[in-house]
Amino acid sequence: MKRIMLLIIAIGALAGVVALTARASRHVYQEDTPTFVTEIPAGYREWRFISVAHEEGNLNSFGSILGNDVAIKAYREGTLPFPDGAIIAALHYKFVPSAENNKAFGREQSFVPGQQPPWYLQFMVKDTKKYAATGGWGYAQFDKDGKPGLESDMKKCFPCHQAIKERDFVFTRYAP
Amino acid sequence: MKRIMLLIIAIGALAGVVALTARASRHVYQEDTPTFVTEIPAGYREWRFISVAHEEGNLNSFGSILGNDVAIKAYREGTLPFPDGAIIAALHYKFVPSAENNKAFGREQSFVPGQQPPWYLQFMVKDTKKYAATGGWGYAQFDKDGKPGLESDMKKCFPCHQAIKERDFVFTRYAP
Repeated sequence: MKRIMLLIIAIGALAGVVALTARASRHVYQEDTPTFVTEIPAGYREWRFISVAHEEGNLNSFGSILGNDVAIKAYREGTLPFPDGAIIAALHYKFVPSAENNKAFGREQSFVPGQQPPWYLQFMVKDTKKYAATGGWGYAQFDKDGKPGLESDMKKCFPCHQAIKERDFVFTRYAP
Repeated sequence: MKRIMLLIIAIGALAGVVALTARASRHVYQEDTPTFVTEIPAGYREWRFISVAHEEGNLNSFGSILGNDVAIKAYREGTLPFPDGAIIAALHYKFVPSAENNKAFGREQSFVPGQQPPWYLQFMVKDTKKYAATGGWGYAQFDKDGKPGLESDMKKCFPCHQAIKERDFVFTRYAP
């Protein structure tokens, strides 16, 4: 139960209210329509930097958001909707104090990512045909061992991201 | 005075105690020895992701640390000291709450970079000959308008980074 709650919160890390309407759920979650991605996109750790994010509370995460070439180009040119082929990656680490840095600063003030693989990874993959039912985006989440999120949890991504439909369902803004 | 204090704190953002010894200052700060970099390295915004950092308190910054190809390769292979040509960039943004994300989450928990150019930029440029007097690294800081830090402030970088001599004066660890 705790794990499920964590996933629910995590899915909202690119953020959004889970406000699922009966209509949306009927449309989106047909058995034969893929709404999420089950394989980690190759090479994401080589992608360019979009922005950073921190969530307090239960999540206590430290995120780095990266984009492939298509996503970066769209961000920089302000292209909306994002073109097919765009992929946005969110690497979420544990948000931990740095004893090393704090010692150097002489006070408690420094936070860094935990020194283990990302706590969880999230992706948004743009393919307007394949993911037509979910705004053209396929959603993905993987735990630190590379295991994909449960289908029941992944179905909560799109309803949440609908809160930011005016930016093509993408919460993260480009850090200039 | 406030600006100078800010710079002093900022220079420590890759971190370290300012523990300047008489000997170090005599050796390092000869008039004819470059110890810092006055031009923004080209293309740094295209570099790959090393890690993120947050500093509380006066600084209240949200940092993204990027590396050029030489730096990334050295980080991933654990090469110490870093080879000549390595450049590490730290993009420091203001750490601001995201009203947009908080609304979506339904609580105050989300922090993102301020939506203006980085508050300040820092670089470490490895050139063992050119920067022989400061551990092989040239240090740089630029404000949001691209103006380099004062020479008097830049001279505080190396003494601070000596606290982490065992990792070739580089505080930031690679986020896996």
